Amino acid sequence: MKSYSIKELLSSNLSLQEVTVKGWVKTFRSNRFIALNDGSTINNIQCVVNFENFDEALLKKVSTGAALEISGTLVESQGRGQSVEIQVNKLEVLGVSDPDTYPIQPKKHSLEFLREKAHLRVRTNTFAAVMRVRSVLSFAVHRYFQNNGFYNVHTPIITGSDAEGAGEMFRVSTLNQKKPPLNEAGEIDFKQDFFGKETNLTVSGQLEAETYAMALGKVYTFGPTFRAENSNTSRHLAEFWMIEPEVAFNDLDANMDLAEDFIKDVINYILENCAEDLKFLEQRLLDEEKSKPQAERSDMDLIEKLKFVSENNFKRVSYTEAIDILKSCTPNKKKKFKYIIDEWGADLQSEHERFLVEKHFKCPVILFDYPAKIKAFYMRLNDDGKTVRAMDILFPGIGEIVGGSQREERLDVLLDKIKELGIDEEELWWYLDLRKFGTAVHSGFGLGFERLVLFATGMGNIRDVIPFPRTPQNAEF
Amino acid sequence: MKSYSIKELLSSNLSLQEVTVKGWVKTFRSNRFIALNDGSTINNIQCVVNFENFDEALLKKVSTGAALEISGTLVESQGRGQSVEIQVNKLEVLGVSDPDTYPIQPKKHSLEFLREKAHLRVRTNTFAAVMRVRSVLSFAVHRYFQNNGFYNVHTPIITGSDAEGAGEMFRVSTLNQKKPPLNEAGEIDFKQDFFGKETNLTVSGQLEAETYAMALGKVYTFGPTFRAENSNTSRHLAEFWMIEPEVAFNDLDANMDLAEDFIKDVINYILENCAEDLKFLEQRLLDEEKSKPQAERSDMDLIEKLKFVSENNFKRVSYTEAIDILKSCTPNKKKKFKYIIDEWGADLQSEHERFLVEKHFKCPVILFDYPAKIKAFYMRLNDDGKTVRAMDILFPGIGEIVGGSQREERLDVLLDKIKELGIDEEELWWYLDLRKFGTAVHSGFGLGFERLVLFATGMGNIRDVIPFPRTPQNAEF
Repeated sequence: MKSYSIKELLSSNLSLQEVTVKGWVKTFRSNRFIALNDGSTINNIQCVVNFENFDEALLKKVSTGAALEISGTLVESQGRGQSVEIQVNKLEVLGVSDPDTYPIQPKKHSLEFLREKAHLRVRTNTFAAVMRVRSVLSFAVHRYFQNNGFYNVHTPIITGSDAEGAGEMFRVSTLNQKKPPLNEAGEIDFKQDFFGKETNLTVSGQLEAETYAMALGKVYTFGPTFRAENSNTSRHLAEFWMIEPEVAFNDLDANMDLAEDFIKDVINYILENCAEDLKFLEQRLLDEEKSKPQAERSDMDLIEKLKFVSENNFKRVSYTEAIDILKSCTPNKKKKFKYIIDEWGADLQSEHERFLVEKHFKCPVILFDYPAKIKAFYMRLNDDGKTVRAMDILFPGIGEIVGGSQREERLDVLLDKIKELGIDEEELWWYLDLRKFGTAVHSGFGLGFERLVLFATGMGNIRDVIPFPRTPQNAEF
Repeated sequence: MKSYSIKELLSSNLSLQEVTVKGWVKTFRSNRFIALNDGSTINNIQCVVNFENFDEALLKKVSTGAALEISGTLVESQGRGQSVEIQVNKLEVLGVSDPDTYPIQPKKHSLEFLREKAHLRVRTNTFAAVMRVRSVLSFAVHRYFQNNGFYNVHTPIITGSDAEGAGEMFRVSTLNQKKPPLNEAGEIDFKQDFFGKETNLTVSGQLEAETYAMALGKVYTFGPTFRAENSNTSRHLAEFWMIEPEVAFNDLDANMDLAEDFIKDVINYILENCAEDLKFLEQRLLDEEKSKPQAERSDMDLIEKLKFVSENNFKRVSYTEAIDILKSCTPNKKKKFKYIIDEWGADLQSEHERFLVEKHFKCPVILFDYPAKIKAFYMRLNDDGKTVRAMDILFPGIGEIVGGSQREERLDVLLDKIKELGIDEEELWWYLDLRKFGTAVHSGFGLGFERLVLFATGMGNIRDVIPFPRTPQNAEF
């Protein structure tokens, strides 16, 4: 007898056949109806037990969370809401689950409570749905790039380069931590460390990805990146996955086109492939928002919002235009913003981005041509001498989801910039080589994968869209 | 005028159309024939320059490595070996490449020399081919699992758990390295560290993947893992990518079936999708082996070897059978092995694995049912009380490419084992929970991705199949 996944059974034409299924008990009602789930789908299969035929002691072990192997006849369902059910002939309890101690009972648990049980929370409908969507979304990322002529590059996680400048770093070492060896100058002797130098966890694979784009043309990374910043917000993780495409010969316009096309494609892919999980997550969000005041509820339901993004053009606005809008907007004039925008050059805060996206344009926005002073050294200087070819994509409810730029391909301009910022030229010898040998216009961006999952699932806290979140003071499991 | 990739142009029917192409000069012969490559394919497009129509100073800048934008008419090629070529109408040098200083000249460079230029080596035919195959292989991995009902899980890279026991770990910290804070007992006060505890880089995502398999059924990881071992061999990296599927309700036989089916599928995928790169790599290997004595050359050419693996069953042999074969084999009797096999229980060394695979069976071998004493704590104990349901897959020329097992699902047996080994039960509370609540048979394996790339490309050193290798004393770039 072939074993089937519950997803297969529910969409099959196997009626009246004998089947075997293995999974975990969601509920057991009236000593008769077992709702069984094996993770393959949000839907359970109903297994109907004729309790007179089974040992009472056995049925006592059928409780939420228990693992079962069930054989029986697949029949058209008598009840509503399911197409087929199993008339159970044989039932084996593979692993019990004591109702008095099992934390995941069939009732509503708070997301905060479940974070403490990260090893079990994926057994809930919400987290199982989130993690299936996350998985399909991750595949959509690879699929998009591979179908469009990109090559995946695994850039290094441990880096000896500290010039990326995207944030605070975690140190990686095997030196004796209590008594590190010192050199003659009394400093730590990194020559004795594993790599013979000081090393950290990467904050971005961009610089290394550029070296590959300048040979393979179109490349992308999809790997973990790290920020040792003490940010305890619902949008920050110390360890998160980032997607970084990099394309030779692309200017900033082509870069914006790529980012927009990419995001729309992966959103469409989950709309097509995760319909049931998204429907469940949409209802979850509706239920959650019922307790909120009207003003704080979403304008759109989850699936409507995803379709809106995939079907409408992102609004492209220069930083300068954005500043003009912000200077004259009501919250700025009435000093409702924490940071008042009074002149060109100001760094935009989350409150400003949210105003632009959620109140003013009411759609995803691409801001571009930022002041050079507030952006990274590698971004291409415009002819005005004061802005760079940077772009950020801002999403409703999420804020910045993409940050990218055309890279400075001119050796002399890049060298000036590095000197101005006091970056060690020696550290970047290999990055500068790209500008010495066959340099060309090129561009890329970084997209924080968890922020995309947040948007796609309608979850509110980034800790709830990655299996085992790493945040300040938290590295359990 | 639309820009085309060279791959598109070479397989197109665009003859007599005007096209634009951007790429890098491979060679420039007779002041007339530019071989241009943009990384999209191993093949160059020939661009024919009527030098009388171009400025001499411009053509002087056309040297190996220079970036060009070329417009012209696509015509059927006059020369042999290419279908189409471009009659150049317009030529722009985007970025020069000084022949006196550019390290990647059109001649044979040693792999060792190129390792020092890891930022440029992907501009050579060999490394471009290897990295394209690596990319397609990585996609084949995701494609296989996603098409077979698996969910991708991003297990944590920074781990607070040190019970994995797979090897030496790298410490991750933000504490002051020179003067770490001490607690009252004079020990380092990890409460002040970023995560409030001691943390390391993961050596395996298996234990966390198990938590997801016991909810989603079939899951896989594909991420970086780390070993702080001072192994300077051609098969070890300190940072490497690992694939770890984990499946609820699979026993060891199903686990072996999965591993074999998976490997065959991804090998077939690259045979279908990387034909030209593999052909190039096959020739490279033939050329390399010409300088070797006959006895050290491969029995099969690269593509033949890949087909052999994808078309033939892997030989499944118990550890006990393998020991019998080894005890009575000639190299053991004649003491040619460094480690003589004289009794059951011995850990197999690389020389023994190679003998079994390359001399005795001459095909991939799955060894299973190893002595419990030489395997990890989480492997399921057989009824004999002395062997565990472990399996290793050994490949010709590579050695161990997969290590896996059925996991011990019985709480009491697992607790006994943990006590016996002195592992801290408290550390594994969440792992033990899986055996308390709805436990079931489950299995999985780990496959070192770089070893698969080594096998697929015929390269000899693992440092040459990852973009920026991390090894003892080496974390450049």
